[in-house]
Amino acid sequence: MSSFAELWAEIAPIGRADSGGYLRFALTEPELTLRDWFRAQASSRDMTVTEDGNGNLFAWRGEPWAPGTVLTGSHFDSVPHGGGFDGPLGIVSAFLAIDEVPNDRQIGIAAFVEEEGGRFGVPCLGSRLLTGAMDPSRAAALKDRDGISFGEALGATPVGQITRLANIKAVVELHIEQGIALETPVGVASAIWPHGRWRMDFAGVGDHAGTTRMTDRRDPMLTFAFTVLAANKEARLTGAHATVGRVQVEPNATNAIPSLVRGWLDARAADSGTLDRLVDEVVRKATERAGRDGTTVAVTPESVTPEVAFDGPLATHLSKVLGDAPILPTGAGHDAGVLSAHVPTAMLFVRNPTGVSHSPAEHASDADCEAGIKALATVLTDLS
Amino acid sequence: MSSFAELWAEIAPIGRADSGGYLRFALTEPELTLRDWFRAQASSRDMTVTEDGNGNLFAWRGEPWAPGTVLTGSHFDSVPHGGGFDGPLGIVSAFLAIDEVPNDRQIGIAAFVEEEGGRFGVPCLGSRLLTGAMDPSRAAALKDRDGISFGEALGATPVGQITRLANIKAVVELHIEQGIALETPVGVASAIWPHGRWRMDFAGVGDHAGTTRMTDRRDPMLTFAFTVLAANKEARLTGAHATVGRVQVEPNATNAIPSLVRGWLDARAADSGTLDRLVDEVVRKATERAGRDGTTVAVTPESVTPEVAFDGPLATHLSKVLGDAPILPTGAGHDAGVLSAHVPTAMLFVRNPTGVSHSPAEHASDADCEAGIKALATVLTDLS
Repeated sequence: MSSFAELWAEIAPIGRADSGGYLRFALTEPELTLRDWFRAQASSRDMTVTEDGNGNLFAWRGEPWAPGTVLTGSHFDSVPHGGGFDGPLGIVSAFLAIDEVPNDRQIGIAAFVEEEGGRFGVPCLGSRLLTGAMDPSRAAALKDRDGISFGEALGATPVGQITRLANIKAVVELHIEQGIALETPVGVASAIWPHGRWRMDFAGVGDHAGTTRMTDRRDPMLTFAFTVLAANKEARLTGAHATVGRVQVEPNATNAIPSLVRGWLDARAADSGTLDRLVDEVVRKATERAGRDGTTVAVTPESVTPEVAFDGPLATHLSKVLGDAPILPTGAGHDAGVLSAHVPTAMLFVRNPTGVSHSPAEHASDADCEAGIKALATVLTDLS
Repeated sequence: MSSFAELWAEIAPIGRADSGGYLRFALTEPELTLRDWFRAQASSRDMTVTEDGNGNLFAWRGEPWAPGTVLTGSHFDSVPHGGGFDGPLGIVSAFLAIDEVPNDRQIGIAAFVEEEGGRFGVPCLGSRLLTGAMDPSRAAALKDRDGISFGEALGATPVGQITRLANIKAVVELHIEQGIALETPVGVASAIWPHGRWRMDFAGVGDHAGTTRMTDRRDPMLTFAFTVLAANKEARLTGAHATVGRVQVEPNATNAIPSLVRGWLDARAADSGTLDRLVDEVVRKATERAGRDGTTVAVTPESVTPEVAFDGPLATHLSKVLGDAPILPTGAGHDAGVLSAHVPTAMLFVRNPTGVSHSPAEHASDADCEAGIKALATVLTDLS
């Protein structure tokens, strides 16, 4: 049996950038290499490997999708220059945990595709397709930054909803915690904040930076900048989270007033009412400012996920099984959140001492990861 | 003899993007195609073509660099999705004007490399090298967005200063006007505003957009946004021009707080005192805000050009030769501005009815372009 550190070292170099972070985008070479590693791990445990026609990969102990199977796993893909734990920890832990689960139990391990939305823009794309929450032809048409569609990357239009999901008895996803709220090695998730992504297109008039009088300008960079500050202020006032972390500028030249600035608003709140009010207020302020700047703003929701309350009795039960592990909510989206609308679902979190995630500095200790594996093995044995 | 419209049509499709604007970056395929066209135009007029080892291309009637030669021309390169007139109009007009200048006159036509700084970041790179204003090894090391250096693109380290420039009697660059100040078909330049580019690196701490509490964030996007608005406000208060048209974000992911936002400030003013005060005030405000955001800001001047006052008696003379053409300053940089420190230099502007430039919408009428060619022929005949 591999120890955690040994197995972790096998995948650590795959897709690692000079920044120390990872470039493991869905269906690109590093993520495909990780999928090969997944097949090898499954094979060494005599597990059956299947794909679901949506880009999701599975290893099964017992018949694939057999009634009563407990499903675990997570995702391989990263945000650009993200940490190595976000996603892969759940898959590595699943293979090590299953070694501790009695051989007669039916367990599946999943590697969901495009959880981050880092390549095709829609997070949890694989689990959304699998559960029927996402239209397959819409998914096929999603494009990455180079214009390659998800359908092209997959080599086919995804098949969409997998009805045999109804056979799954429970889902348990183990994941590194992405804040600093967890003070013990392992915790259990209560809920995922409602959250979403809104693309904001600020359009103005491209012109010469040197010769265009300030009063004649229709500069969308101003409207964008104002909106960034307004979103931050609204989030602080409402106790929500708002971030503008991605920007695209046309023509993006030093000596040209932009014709278009495109920014993405990531917003999350403890309840849907607060989230809706936050986004409405940001859009209202952006629109008002656009009127003053002579620009326009068009807002497109790219993905909006309502609050996910994980199965309460299941979370309470698992907390007890794990010796009163703390139960806590998260602001981060997960495939488990999508699956929870269809199957009794739980999440285990592994402590993140600094809370840093989506950054090369993301880290969890070996001891906490080993505690996570032990907890996952306990939970899988208990549930299966 | 070609009419303006005929010759213009020859180059109109080269490097044209779907936006209607141009992607004619220095030493890339479209600009190299335009250089081939330049050689063919020179050849059809029995002109000698030379290169100067700095990426600048010349066609000569008479011996290259012969004492008493009058030099005209402009540049082929564009900003990303820029207009077709900015630069190429001066070269096309030069070839058509020379057809009207008596055959015994010594005239040179130049195509200067990298006037926009759109590929390697330093505008007027070719004329700066030629005049000795730019160190050749520093120029060789400048990199484009793909990491290719100017030296690599050129195939050699540039040779730098060309001492035979002292033989040139006068320089006249014809250019489309880039504001709306010119109300007649042709005008004469008085001065170029002092101007420059400052790279601003806003550094913070990359983290998860969903899980990081607002109070724990060190988000450089906020400092950037504040600085964009501060620069705009300072420019309006001081009668200067300030623009942030280019942005780079790391990691540039929707669900990650950026670790770095890099913005470029383009600033220009009627005098150096105002420009210095503007930039100082923007940097002061950015630094103050960075203190509040828990971020840092580092400002690097990439190129700063002091005020250029073109040869006053020459401008007055040319205005008279052209029937009292108006004399006006510009906020746009030009190779003629760099050359004016070494050779008596003038510029002719062709009317731009909307004032739009550095945009696909940039335009001058055929009639005004023909008037420009006639004026350039008159001036070249007068000076040579």
